[in-house]
Amino acid sequence: MKPTILISNDDGITAEGIFALATEIKKFANVIVVAPHTQQSAVGHSITMSDPIRARKVYHGKSFFGYAVEGTPADSVKLAVHTLLKNKKIDLLISGINQGANTAINIIYSGTVSAATEGTILGLPSFAISLTSYTEKNFKPAAKFAAKLAKIILRKGLPKGVLLNVNVPAIPESKIKGALVTKQGKSSWDDTFEKRIDPANREYFWLTGSMYKIDESKEYDVKAVDEGYISVTPIHYDLTDYEFYEKMKNWKI
Amino acid sequence: MKPTILISNDDGITAEGIFALATEIKKFANVIVVAPHTQQSAVGHSITMSDPIRARKVYHGKSFFGYAVEGTPADSVKLAVHTLLKNKKIDLLISGINQGANTAINIIYSGTVSAATEGTILGLPSFAISLTSYTEKNFKPAAKFAAKLAKIILRKGLPKGVLLNVNVPAIPESKIKGALVTKQGKSSWDDTFEKRIDPANREYFWLTGSMYKIDESKEYDVKAVDEGYISVTPIHYDLTDYEFYEKMKNWKI
Repeated sequence: MKPTILISNDDGITAEGIFALATEIKKFANVIVVAPHTQQSAVGHSITMSDPIRARKVYHGKSFFGYAVEGTPADSVKLAVHTLLKNKKIDLLISGINQGANTAINIIYSGTVSAATEGTILGLPSFAISLTSYTEKNFKPAAKFAAKLAKIILRKGLPKGVLLNVNVPAIPESKIKGALVTKQGKSSWDDTFEKRIDPANREYFWLTGSMYKIDESKEYDVKAVDEGYISVTPIHYDLTDYEFYEKMKNWKI
Repeated sequence: MKPTILISNDDGITAEGIFALATEIKKFANVIVVAPHTQQSAVGHSITMSDPIRARKVYHGKSFFGYAVEGTPADSVKLAVHTLLKNKKIDLLISGINQGANTAINIIYSGTVSAATEGTILGLPSFAISLTSYTEKNFKPAAKFAAKLAKIILRKGLPKGVLLNVNVPAIPESKIKGALVTKQGKSSWDDTFEKRIDPANREYFWLTGSMYKIDESKEYDVKAVDEGYISVTPIHYDLTDYEFYEKMKNWKI
């Protein structure tokens, strides 16, 4: 029997990346797409509690493509599992293909990763996948790797509470050197706010900046991708710092 | 010289919790408040990239209280550090006092925690503090503990990349048994979506649910608070699952 795979993202149901992913995964699985109706990048792990959530069916011509949810990536996954697909057995969740790298510190801001995290919280083996460019439109290598990884996970499973975060370098498929299991990099952002003045003479700010890369080994996601590897990082959502936990027990608080 | 302490939150600059916190901290420190203009609960670690951000000064009568930022908690902290307070030395960041528990899985959805996380990313010793009730308005015990903890951290510091997540039980101060250093609990939500029909006959959903508590030891935040202790959990934002990282290196991917 074909496996059933739930697909979500944070770029929205009309994004090219989710279409490329769904197209590739449909070759071996029943695919159900449930994704935000609009682009939700950098929403982090948001959920909507103060507003109601709506879902509508999206068609490509006459053929049903999936459900658009007026909410965040995490909302979409929660609504899919608890309501839209309530009586369906889901074997795997894939979130993506995101446009832009979700490496290093970006992971904590990522809506793409949050959809996969929510899947894991709800007990589904889950992974997030990103193409490390905002402009590259060739999703094929990433989609093919997603299919390969999905088949492996369907066979081997993932430990409880662990998901995978995949980043595929935006280079020609022939130049990709293979896939590496990596750690989350330590690189961070050099934020800057660009100040502007609006026509009514009030100031406002645009957040910009660039990543300063400090990861020098391809053990880390950032560097692995820069060297032409697909990076696969096992992550979790137990944020406890166990090392300092032990030390801090001696503090008098 | 008095220390300088940046205060933010996710309930917004008009919330009672941030006022109570600022009032208590002003007794020994220069306080600068930079917080979202409106309530931002469950925004996770969102940042605003597709819209410009504005900030305006908020006064209580004639006295300056702080900056209201049209953005998320993380936006507020980024804008404070990089722009509003650019040339000021900040000794500590406190986010709160949040109304509602930020224990167990809630940490990953929490805007309050995300403000403190952003402080840590930007190199400031930081902690988040929550009162574990949506209705209790006596913030005094939590504010007093925040002051105590702030003084300890100003003296001892925190390791790079580590922040503290504090939860204060919403019980009379005399009943609080003390403070415990804890781990993030494993308890999670039993989500339900309540379906309703709008006047135009379209369905919509409200996310509701309750936490099912599985943490049976006061080593964990959830249980510590339930037993009447203030819970202090050291957390970080390196999400790598090192245990599965080692195992997964043997996967052929």
